[in-house]
Amino acid sequence: MNRRDLLKLGAGAMSGFYPAMAAARAKSKDEGGKRHEDAEQWGVFEASFDGPSTGNPFVDVTFGARFTLENRTVNVPGFYDGGGVYRVRFMPDAAGEWSYETVSNVASLAGQTGTFRCVAPSAGNHGPVQVAHTFHFEHADGTPYFPFGTTCYAWAFLGESLEEETLRTLSAGPFNKVRMCVLPKPVNNAPLFAFPFVRHADGTNDLTRLNPSYFQHIEKRVQDLIQMDIQADLILFHPYDSWGYKSMPADADDRYLRYVIARFSAYRNVWWSIANEYDLFKDKTPADFDRFFRIVQEVDPSQHLRSIHYSKVLYDYAKSWVTHASLQNYAFDRAAEWREAWNKPIIYDEIQYEGNIARRWGNLSAQEMTRRFWLAAVAGAYATHGETYVSTHGEPESADGGAMRGQSPARIGFLRKLVEGSTSIGLTQFEGTYYLSAGEAGQLYLYFFDYHQPAEYEFPLPQDSKFSAEIIDPWEMTITPVAGTFSGTSKLALSGKPYLAARFRKIA
Amino acid sequence: MNRRDLLKLGAGAMSGFYPAMAAARAKSKDEGGKRHEDAEQWGVFEASFDGPSTGNPFVDVTFGARFTLENRTVNVPGFYDGGGVYRVRFMPDAAGEWSYETVSNVASLAGQTGTFRCVAPSAGNHGPVQVAHTFHFEHADGTPYFPFGTTCYAWAFLGESLEEETLRTLSAGPFNKVRMCVLPKPVNNAPLFAFPFVRHADGTNDLTRLNPSYFQHIEKRVQDLIQMDIQADLILFHPYDSWGYKSMPADADDRYLRYVIARFSAYRNVWWSIANEYDLFKDKTPADFDRFFRIVQEVDPSQHLRSIHYSKVLYDYAKSWVTHASLQNYAFDRAAEWREAWNKPIIYDEIQYEGNIARRWGNLSAQEMTRRFWLAAVAGAYATHGETYVSTHGEPESADGGAMRGQSPARIGFLRKLVEGSTSIGLTQFEGTYYLSAGEAGQLYLYFFDYHQPAEYEFPLPQDSKFSAEIIDPWEMTITPVAGTFSGTSKLALSGKPYLAARFRKIA
Repeated sequence: MNRRDLLKLGAGAMSGFYPAMAAARAKSKDEGGKRHEDAEQWGVFEASFDGPSTGNPFVDVTFGARFTLENRTVNVPGFYDGGGVYRVRFMPDAAGEWSYETVSNVASLAGQTGTFRCVAPSAGNHGPVQVAHTFHFEHADGTPYFPFGTTCYAWAFLGESLEEETLRTLSAGPFNKVRMCVLPKPVNNAPLFAFPFVRHADGTNDLTRLNPSYFQHIEKRVQDLIQMDIQADLILFHPYDSWGYKSMPADADDRYLRYVIARFSAYRNVWWSIANEYDLFKDKTPADFDRFFRIVQEVDPSQHLRSIHYSKVLYDYAKSWVTHASLQNYAFDRAAEWREAWNKPIIYDEIQYEGNIARRWGNLSAQEMTRRFWLAAVAGAYATHGETYVSTHGEPESADGGAMRGQSPARIGFLRKLVEGSTSIGLTQFEGTYYLSAGEAGQLYLYFFDYHQPAEYEFPLPQDSKFSAEIIDPWEMTITPVAGTFSGTSKLALSGKPYLAARFRKIA
Repeated sequence: MNRRDLLKLGAGAMSGFYPAMAAARAKSKDEGGKRHEDAEQWGVFEASFDGPSTGNPFVDVTFGARFTLENRTVNVPGFYDGGGVYRVRFMPDAAGEWSYETVSNVASLAGQTGTFRCVAPSAGNHGPVQVAHTFHFEHADGTPYFPFGTTCYAWAFLGESLEEETLRTLSAGPFNKVRMCVLPKPVNNAPLFAFPFVRHADGTNDLTRLNPSYFQHIEKRVQDLIQMDIQADLILFHPYDSWGYKSMPADADDRYLRYVIARFSAYRNVWWSIANEYDLFKDKTPADFDRFFRIVQEVDPSQHLRSIHYSKVLYDYAKSWVTHASLQNYAFDRAAEWREAWNKPIIYDEIQYEGNIARRWGNLSAQEMTRRFWLAAVAGAYATHGETYVSTHGEPESADGGAMRGQSPARIGFLRKLVEGSTSIGLTQFEGTYYLSAGEAGQLYLYFFDYHQPAEYEFPLPQDSKFSAEIIDPWEMTITPVAGTFSGTSKLALSGKPYLAARFRKIA
């Protein structure tokens, strides 16, 4: 099933969620309505409308729009943005003349129409990331995408100064994905800039009323990441919470979820991480998370990537609504069997953290973090970085954003460039080779020697092609070409240092 | 059952092996016979006798002696040493006036008697090593013994020059146990100095005739190790063989085995390793190795330590004739469950090798080898070193002896001294501590942080005692005292480097 089919399916499945929609009068684009400015493909088209501000717009009002391009129609949820303003956002995935018609249970918000032209994407806009080649990813325009992510759980809650520092850090860094929480996560005992729900003076929540300004801020941070070409792996639920959001009733969970989908799904860099450590929620069952998956799958018009992250109990990543595995472990030697079980890409999204805090998971050396990224790469999988150095002057310490002090990011960037310069598909693990290796059969062979330090090794290259050879030092970040060309079993002298790699590329 | 009881049992069980013995006339020590020089406790008493050199002494002649101290009698097998000379060797384990009477199916070798006085052991002679405190070892006189061994499989077959170099290396090194083969192992394509069995010009073996001069040489090397206070972990069978000794018929196996026991069991530093990689023998079944164990258990008058080493298929170390486990793996995290299953000491006798050869098992960095020794130590177990650097000028490369070029031995020596200076029992693993630790409850806590690099950690020390604290760098081999005394939960600053350790010793 390709992306377009999925979108069609999503549209069909969605109709049940908009009871007013089926009854709405279908207007053709010829009937006019508002003419909007051009929108670029995979950009954000937005239309806003005035509607009721009294009562409870989050509960009382249903609102959305049906977007049409020629014979295709996509149902898009809208959302209330406060001050009587209702918005609908849409990420058009194809160029052409689009029209829309709003749907609502409020007369003034229903039947509004408009048109816009979707034009070619601007430079650097390659569209959302999706699964490709079964175990890998690419942008919608076919541009390869290999996730080399980091974790800044709370970066959007740090306050202007530290958030800007996070952006500078990410901008200068090697990472092309950030795992971040949508709901607030306590950090540094700092007061929250705002709450996601209306909060009374006595500390109780009105979970029927969301707070648009809270989400406007998160949204700005997602937009910031788009500018830097960084994917926002949005963690929708998490158990690190001191305000009650981890144990909301189901109707509040679902309302929040639909609201976030409506607000964020038009941003092309969004990934949905249903939860972090879902198995640590005391007041939810696995079925709750299945329900969240199904809601996201049904409601998101752009069908962004979907996964979920656990603490100890693996989620069943074979389930149909999961697009890729998001693991918390570093069992890279099991990647092959998991690929066979799930038939999806694998991201080792939490492989412990470079740092020096007292917790076992938070004090890897930079060398060990670098090693784990390499082990993931030659396992045909991906890994995600995080940093947890002890806070010395108030900076966040639990992979929450701010500056990075570690030495692994530079090495991860080196590996990212190396992979990007080696393949347009991704590295396929060569199972059972004597030393760990991955690549593209017949084209590319990348070996990683881990703690082994052979003085020389006979690499079993194919007989029928010629290859260039390079010795790679992942820590020193050097690539040293070996003179000559190689074919068949090829003995190369190595330095006798551990943690080296070797790359062979077909040249003829 | 203590050592003395075991010896009694051995004597009883042995009677069946000496059919002539029961019929031999019992002479009391008062009847005289030859008066020998004094022998020291745990030294080697030897008496030799002239006997037949015609026919096949290895098959035709049974020979041994019954040694008596007061009411105790020990049956000791003798052996033919060529040239018509028959010897019986005995390691007296108690001071006093011993007498013996020979037993044989040859009249001239039967009924010979003698006496000798067993005197106190000389300095440095602490007797053989035996199991102590269930999971540890000590010498017969109660001196602690913690195995920090190495592997020199073929060192006794290298020729005088390299054998002397091996001795110099061992003498200057930190190791107190050497795993070595009794049957020849091919090394460096060098010709063998001798064969263990008579070998015809056409390359066939006469497996009914052993070659005493071969065993005299091995014996000399075992004696050399005694001088250096190094245990000789004798590998009785191994599958690395190009002369046919790995696939001898059962009668030849057993004859060889009894011969070796008779020749070597009086040396106090002997351990019996029934086989190396027993599961790689194509022409033997597990039952053969069980039989070897039972023979050794029955025939060895000194009841030396007994184990067996595998390649992939673990031997059942719970079997009654096994004194300790001799593992080939580095699954230190399973030590606790294995101790529970076997109730015996565990030696990880093959944890791969420091070196740089092309094989995966033979190219660990010195850092990784050092790390594995520490992991074994805090798992309450022991490890064995080996070195496999590529041969550059003909020196042996497969842990076979000669000089050592690695950097781990110095670190292993540092750890050995540290353990010896910390405990007289051995390190007991503290299961389930947040970081790996071992020691003696209430007295000693040794932590190893492996790849973790916390800047500080709150060590959960007992409340009711005071402890000194030291930070240990296993690679730099430094022990840095921390000022002050510590009790209860004690936070210590660490350096933020990985692979550090900390030691706490009770001072009040």
